[in-house]
Amino acid sequence: MTLPSEWELIRRIKTLCSEQPSPGALITGIGDDCAVFETAPGRYGLITADISIENVHFRLDYCSPEEIGHKAMTGNISDIAAMGGKPLLAFVSLGIPGRLDPGDVEALYRGMIKAAGPTGPKIAGGDTSSSESLIISIAVYGETGPEKPVMRNGACAGDTICLTGNVGGSLAGLEILAGKRRHNGAFPDLVSRHVSPRHRRDCAPEILGRFSPAAMIDVSDGLLSDLRHLCEASGTGFLLNGENIPLPAGLDRYASVMGRDPLDYALHSGEEFELLFTSKAAFTEPVKLETGVMVTPVGFVTQGGFMLSYRGEKKEIEIVGYDHFK
Amino acid sequence: MTLPSEWELIRRIKTLCSEQPSPGALITGIGDDCAVFETAPGRYGLITADISIENVHFRLDYCSPEEIGHKAMTGNISDIAAMGGKPLLAFVSLGIPGRLDPGDVEALYRGMIKAAGPTGPKIAGGDTSSSESLIISIAVYGETGPEKPVMRNGACAGDTICLTGNVGGSLAGLEILAGKRRHNGAFPDLVSRHVSPRHRRDCAPEILGRFSPAAMIDVSDGLLSDLRHLCEASGTGFLLNGENIPLPAGLDRYASVMGRDPLDYALHSGEEFELLFTSKAAFTEPVKLETGVMVTPVGFVTQGGFMLSYRGEKKEIEIVGYDHFK
Repeated sequence: MTLPSEWELIRRIKTLCSEQPSPGALITGIGDDCAVFETAPGRYGLITADISIENVHFRLDYCSPEEIGHKAMTGNISDIAAMGGKPLLAFVSLGIPGRLDPGDVEALYRGMIKAAGPTGPKIAGGDTSSSESLIISIAVYGETGPEKPVMRNGACAGDTICLTGNVGGSLAGLEILAGKRRHNGAFPDLVSRHVSPRHRRDCAPEILGRFSPAAMIDVSDGLLSDLRHLCEASGTGFLLNGENIPLPAGLDRYASVMGRDPLDYALHSGEEFELLFTSKAAFTEPVKLETGVMVTPVGFVTQGGFMLSYRGEKKEIEIVGYDHFK
Repeated sequence: MTLPSEWELIRRIKTLCSEQPSPGALITGIGDDCAVFETAPGRYGLITADISIENVHFRLDYCSPEEIGHKAMTGNISDIAAMGGKPLLAFVSLGIPGRLDPGDVEALYRGMIKAAGPTGPKIAGGDTSSSESLIISIAVYGETGPEKPVMRNGACAGDTICLTGNVGGSLAGLEILAGKRRHNGAFPDLVSRHVSPRHRRDCAPEILGRFSPAAMIDVSDGLLSDLRHLCEASGTGFLLNGENIPLPAGLDRYASVMGRDPLDYALHSGEEFELLFTSKAAFTEPVKLETGVMVTPVGFVTQGGFMLSYRGEKKEIEIVGYDHFK
């Protein structure tokens, strides 16, 4: 493959697009979970777009069409939630292989509609085409208000780093599916975490109210990778406390079967769709939100350097996110 | 292929999505060129989304990456123009095959940026992934104002049907490319019409001011097919005057070489991106806009039936749009 890494490619694309004139309403373009723009004085619109491609992002032998639709929409809703927004409208463009039948396509939509739930987004447009591989490209429009969107770049040294829920299950679930296929029934909770992740949209309003997050992102590439994105955007570093990172039930046991440290999964597992944010609120114990979801302090924002403290050691860590072109 | 026709599939998708609750701000969802929603009282947002897939919508042996990017963005800008809107922001999700090199990807973006021109839309986000086929999925956000967007459903019996520019060249150009490949150099204007179509975004403001269009659509499926969409949405019919439909230079000669009537091309050629609208303004001769583009009266809205008058005959016509699943 002659393509450079995904990050290098995005850098080149950003450079090209930076030469375009920018409408006055645009506040943030490429580089955050969503683009942010003013739709009217003091009103903010958000748009995010993601593409999921068969055999790159998902496999039809691991996941049902309904699960695939559900997960694709969940990722987009999560991007809006990560800026403190409400997702309102979704635009779904599909590439559909001839080997699918109409029931499969309807199941895809049922999954997307299930992920949206009663509070949206509403599917309000899109496009369909035939295709060799199944392709799901979704754009979601959302709004914040009256608060401004929470960007990635607001973290300050001293802020507490907070995480909703737990991480690590999605990567473990993928391994289980890849190694043994689903029908073995092993570690169903971890498998389910991979095939049916849920977004934290309903937690976002309470997080805004209780924690006044200075910076926020969702865990889509992996905890370390996304924390780096946030800290690089903010011009800060971090000190992550490995012991404090919450793990899903079963991950300890699965990691021990695999002869690995469960922290490896927690640090690198993508598509978790947990919210990761920084706050000036001082708290050292996990807090339960009204939705029942826990918020756990997992470290501190620092002036520079990416450090992990774990088992009595504190060391600089190398961060490698998932690269779609490797 | 077990899939039903594209229209049947869209009907099923609409039915599923109609069960989702609709946010109060949404005015029009699936079924027009764009979704329309209120971003603030009296302010209207528009979003359109389209997907272009290698070997379905374009071929890399007919078109350069720059032309492919240009055309994909042109189609989206055209959808915003067809509602009288200004395109502001674009979100580009790409599936990129390993056989492309970074220069090809940059050329795709250069094409998109060229189609946007100095007035936008600005590329403000998106996603990239590896893929077997080249995939370009674009969503564009635009606004109208202070006027309301022009929908498809406002046509009334007696309105004049108006068309910008001319139609037929894109289909002829595609035939030339498919039959003989480009390097033969035959009919370069028709070929160029297929590989480098332009949108009519700059004509839209003057059309709004001079013609107060009651209904508008862009010619993306084909003149007959899109006129049917407009008239079905409006609950009307049409009488199209075949002799009045403007043809591009060279189409007469090309059609005669092929032993076909040039009107066949004019009626069925898609991806023309001309604006088709209805107006109460009474005029029988073509009008030149300030942009230099002609607006030609090509027929009348009627109470029902799809009629074509041509060479002294008036007959009901059967309309078949391009179906991506056939």
